[in-house]
Amino acid sequence: MIPDTTDYQAVFNELANQAQQIDDVGEVASYIPELQRIDSDKFGIHLTTVDNRNFGVGDSQEKFSIQSISKVLSLVLAIKLVGGKLWQRVGVEPSGTPFNSLIQLELEKGIPRNPFINAGAIVVCDVLVSLLDDPKQQLLEFVREITDDQTIDYNIVVAESERKTSYINTAHINLMKAHGNIYNDIDTVLELYFHLCSIEMNCYELAQTFLFLAYQGVNPFTNKQVLTVSASKRINAIMQTCGFYDEAGEFSFKVGLPGKSGVGGGIIAIRPGKYCIAVWSPKLNAKGNSYKGMKILEYFTTRTQCSIF
Amino acid sequence: MIPDTTDYQAVFNELANQAQQIDDVGEVASYIPELQRIDSDKFGIHLTTVDNRNFGVGDSQEKFSIQSISKVLSLVLAIKLVGGKLWQRVGVEPSGTPFNSLIQLELEKGIPRNPFINAGAIVVCDVLVSLLDDPKQQLLEFVREITDDQTIDYNIVVAESERKTSYINTAHINLMKAHGNIYNDIDTVLELYFHLCSIEMNCYELAQTFLFLAYQGVNPFTNKQVLTVSASKRINAIMQTCGFYDEAGEFSFKVGLPGKSGVGGGIIAIRPGKYCIAVWSPKLNAKGNSYKGMKILEYFTTRTQCSIF
Amino acid sequence: MIPDTTDYQAVFNELANQAQQIDDVGEVASYIPELQRIDSDKFGIHLTTVDNRNFGVGDSQEKFSIQSISKVLSLVLAIKLVGGKLWQRVGVEPSGTPFNSLIQLELEKGIPRNPFINAGAIVVCDVLVSLLDDPKQQLLEFVREITDDQTIDYNIVVAESERKTSYINTAHINLMKAHGNIYNDIDTVLELYFHLCSIEMNCYELAQTFLFLAYQGVNPFTNKQVLTVSASKRINAIMQTCGFYDEAGEFSFKVGLPGKSGVGGGIIAIRPGKYCIAVWSPKLNAKGNSYKGMKILEYFTTRTQCSIF
Amino acid sequence: MIPDTTDYQAVFNELANQAQQIDDVGEVASYIPELQRIDSDKFGIHLTTVDNRNFGVGDSQEKFSIQSISKVLSLVLAIKLVGGKLWQRVGVEPSGTPFNSLIQLELEKGIPRNPFINAGAIVVCDVLVSLLDDPKQQLLEFVREITDDQTIDYNIVVAESERKTSYINTAHINLMKAHGNIYNDIDTVLELYFHLCSIEMNCYELAQTFLFLAYQGVNPFTNKQVLTVSASKRINAIMQTCGFYDEAGEFSFKVGLPGKSGVGGGIIAIRPGKYCIAVWSPKLNAKGNSYKGMKILEYFTTRTQCSIF
Repeated sequence: MIPDTTDYQAVFNELANQAQQIDDVGEVASYIPELQRIDSDKFGIHLTTVDNRNFGVGDSQEKFSIQSISKVLSLVLAIKLVGGKLWQRVGVEPSGTPFNSLIQLELEKGIPRNPFINAGAIVVCDVLVSLLDDPKQQLLEFVREITDDQTIDYNIVVAESERKTSYINTAHINLMKAHGNIYNDIDTVLELYFHLCSIEMNCYELAQTFLFLAYQGVNPFTNKQVLTVSASKRINAIMQTCGFYDEAGEFSFKVGLPGKSGVGGGIIAIRPGKYCIAVWSPKLNAKGNSYKGMKILEYFTTRTQCSIF
Repeated sequence: MIPDTTDYQAVFNELANQAQQIDDVGEVASYIPELQRIDSDKFGIHLTTVDNRNFGVGDSQEKFSIQSISKVLSLVLAIKLVGGKLWQRVGVEPSGTPFNSLIQLELEKGIPRNPFINAGAIVVCDVLVSLLDDPKQQLLEFVREITDDQTIDYNIVVAESERKTSYINTAHINLMKAHGNIYNDIDTVLELYFHLCSIEMNCYELAQTFLFLAYQGVNPFTNKQVLTVSASKRINAIMQTCGFYDEAGEFSFKVGLPGKSGVGGGIIAIRPGKYCIAVWSPKLNAKGNSYKGMKILEYFTTRTQCSIF
Repeated sequence: MIPDTTDYQAVFNELANQAQQIDDVGEVASYIPELQRIDSDKFGIHLTTVDNRNFGVGDSQEKFSIQSISKVLSLVLAIKLVGGKLWQRVGVEPSGTPFNSLIQLELEKGIPRNPFINAGAIVVCDVLVSLLDDPKQQLLEFVREITDDQTIDYNIVVAESERKTSYINTAHINLMKAHGNIYNDIDTVLELYFHLCSIEMNCYELAQTFLFLAYQGVNPFTNKQVLTVSASKRINAIMQTCGFYDEAGEFSFKVGLPGKSGVGGGIIAIRPGKYCIAVWSPKLNAKGNSYKGMKILEYFTTRTQCSIF
Repeated sequence: MIPDTTDYQAVFNELANQAQQIDDVGEVASYIPELQRIDSDKFGIHLTTVDNRNFGVGDSQEKFSIQSISKVLSLVLAIKLVGGKLWQRVGVEPSGTPFNSLIQLELEKGIPRNPFINAGAIVVCDVLVSLLDDPKQQLLEFVREITDDQTIDYNIVVAESERKTSYINTAHINLMKAHGNIYNDIDTVLELYFHLCSIEMNCYELAQTFLFLAYQGVNPFTNKQVLTVSASKRINAIMQTCGFYDEAGEFSFKVGLPGKSGVGGGIIAIRPGKYCIAVWSPKLNAKGNSYKGMKILEYFTTRTQCSIF
């Protein structure tokens, strides 16, 4: 591997300036009260290279709710446990519809399009509930192990807030149960799902956590194999086509990296062989992705000319 | 750029053996009579690297109908002519539905999801009809120029055959016209579209033609700039998310390269910085992509470990 | 049959007053220029009883474009010619979607929901083209015979206007042709369809024409059997569930009679055993039915307490 | 009113013969175990005229689960309590899709098409929960009062069986809750809904119960006004367009009476001014309506020539 000597800090300093000039027309996620309390002007970005250079600006050390970004973590654990059999119960195709639509799920008889829309992540949780004795605890330990950070935790208040307003997710899981694609008790599966969504990290931790996806499945610092080479590449492939709800094409087109967003305003993106980058800005565009986060990553890959394409 | 010294010929020889052992459960495209006449056992593959090494096996020198692969060519020409304004009339998102579905097009008021589904390619043709004096001839000349091969041509019999059976495409263009997203006479636009689909090339020519997408928009042999760096990368991005109809996720997942297929059984794929590969096998899977072609490309990127992820 | 001695003229005089007080928030049909030229304040109503009492007010003697009301006439002729076999190619169920939606037609593989949505009426025209030597002329003669009025005619300007703007209908017929549910040349079938839509009548003529549906299939004045008892009742049944596009339930709920509307602002309704009533007011509600016409018929059946329910 | 002197018993004797000769290709409802235990050969029919003549054959005195027929009863009670305001929360249009589809409900933002699809009946239950102190008990008392029969009751085992398998209904109510169209606690509303579905009656009791819909809202024996004339007619109108799920058009076309079916195999139909008829045969066709019941009612109205059309 050729050393990457790019001075990302200089680029970041530029970006921090640009970020301030963006007229952020997004809106903080309103569907759960806990997310709405956040200071909407927060902005942070962090990049970790596979050879352990670290660059950050802004609120990159402040924890926030990573929300759907954590769907990558549950997917990684499920693939470790069951391998390719997972794909009998969830697809790998983009959905072409909003992340919470029941239409495709009904037409396709309870098989979610991919593991990153809500229904797909719920099926992944169902798989974990089937296989683990204490799924909530074991999932958390798995995340802590990848991250090598024992302080990573669920935010119980957010999980509870999620539970109270989660009618659409309850509709999804019931529809899938009717089609035989949920094996366990609905409340147990949703309990895991709501906790999954409530994990908190900061940009630095995110970049560290997902770095193994830039290094063929191996954590470059500990040399632990999180996933096989092939499985790791495939998770990048799914992020590329399905990581941004109904805006995956737009992200691929403008940023050109595999990535995953969450309604907490976080986005991670992977440059295979080079780095993982994490950005955070709470205001979301109409498709539910961080407005400023997407713009900044577009500037970043244009400026550094390092999309995968 | 580090020289790529992989012995692709050895890999191809392996693949040729494997190809023979694949139980090809696909079916030759039946919707136009001309395509059905093809010998369904044909199989060819060719790879050209950016430093002009060439590798091929099987029927790689035999011309066939490249069909939808040519949608990349019309898109490239349209982007050269109008740039980013094109995206006001066609999106860059995967469709989540079969390539010929009218449903999404109706719900989204005549704006096709992307330029690689039929409706999107028809809008691109409409753009070309607006801008060119003799669109059929000028498109052909553009293709010949990229390819540096004056023998590339339309197959008039195929174009005519297409015209006679093209009720679904006629439905699409009328729906878009009703929504104001077709500016020219319907028959004129369809005439260009049917000719576009009828272009014939062999695997060698395909690999040569699309090599500029692996070299940041520049033909590495002539050094001519076909597209800007940014536009070239974006076309790869769209191929990655939308190049295989309702199976783009599957191709991304298994092959991990941007690519485009046609119902003639051809597939091209791009390894940015390295090569363009073209494969041909006429029998299609249920989603309309070459059954054997997809399997062989999966073996190829697994064997050479060189997906973009 | 008990003689119906209701003084409908008195009721009509009341209605004419009420009609003036309605704040007509509807809009004249805009999709073909010819229809838009009409004086939007026109209002007429006429009722003919099976024992030939006649009552009318307003512009009831002025001809207008009956548009989709004529779909009942083509259906009657097709049923006379092919009987129940017709129902293999078109259903009898309400559509639950706007009259010009392609979605259901695609999902149900080119079989239209019922003969009163555009796609269904086009299939009926295709049936007539298959069976008649000169379908346009023979359809017109059939209508003149029922009506016993040789002056009934197509409006060629309207038919031509319809042809020029009929992209959505062209999309429908092409989709059905692709599914094998159109047997004849597309242009020939549409030519008949556009003429069918252009028939002109006044309220008096409409009431006379459709009276046989109130008299078990027999024209009560000439005693000619237009349809069998059973076929006649079934046409009423289809009007009841499908006669008002996506508002059939509303009409059934508020008016309680089988009926059919047209975008020219006309509505006919049948009281089996008693009468046929026709109303005309050009401004349409959002669902494409005469705004004032529906309100007036609601007053009428409420006032006379003579819905079929 | 002219006395109806038809000898319905003679017709029924004919029908009983014909019923035996029908090759009943239907299937007993399988979705709840309790319904599957029924003897699938049961067949009964009963007719009560408004002047209290009674005719029956077969198992017309045997109670069965009336299932969705009871949706008429909850609707009647809700209309008595809130009148026309109900129609702000549920429509009167046929759905054009299966009775348990979530697609239309999502597209139409949680407003069910009509009160006879499951989602609509659940909204009606929500209205009753808002207004009644003890909705389960008070609904039952209301039914007993109409029927003038204190033995009418819920079948607790069926209600419980329904609750255990009711994932699709749970999906519906959650989707509506997310759209703000359910005001009360989900479990409380579903509890009422499941009990409503479990009411048991025999054909005789059904004919007695719904006779007020044939007599302008008045029970002809007790002279009690159950509903206003207008509301009574409107309920017939909704039954006509929406009473048979995605087969309302077919029933209107072939039988020509307003009616309502249930997956227990029961059907009621109303001849306004004359009678109410109830039929029972447990095997259902593909659309979820009694196969033999629909055929027998078609014979009946053809034989007696007394459809409303």
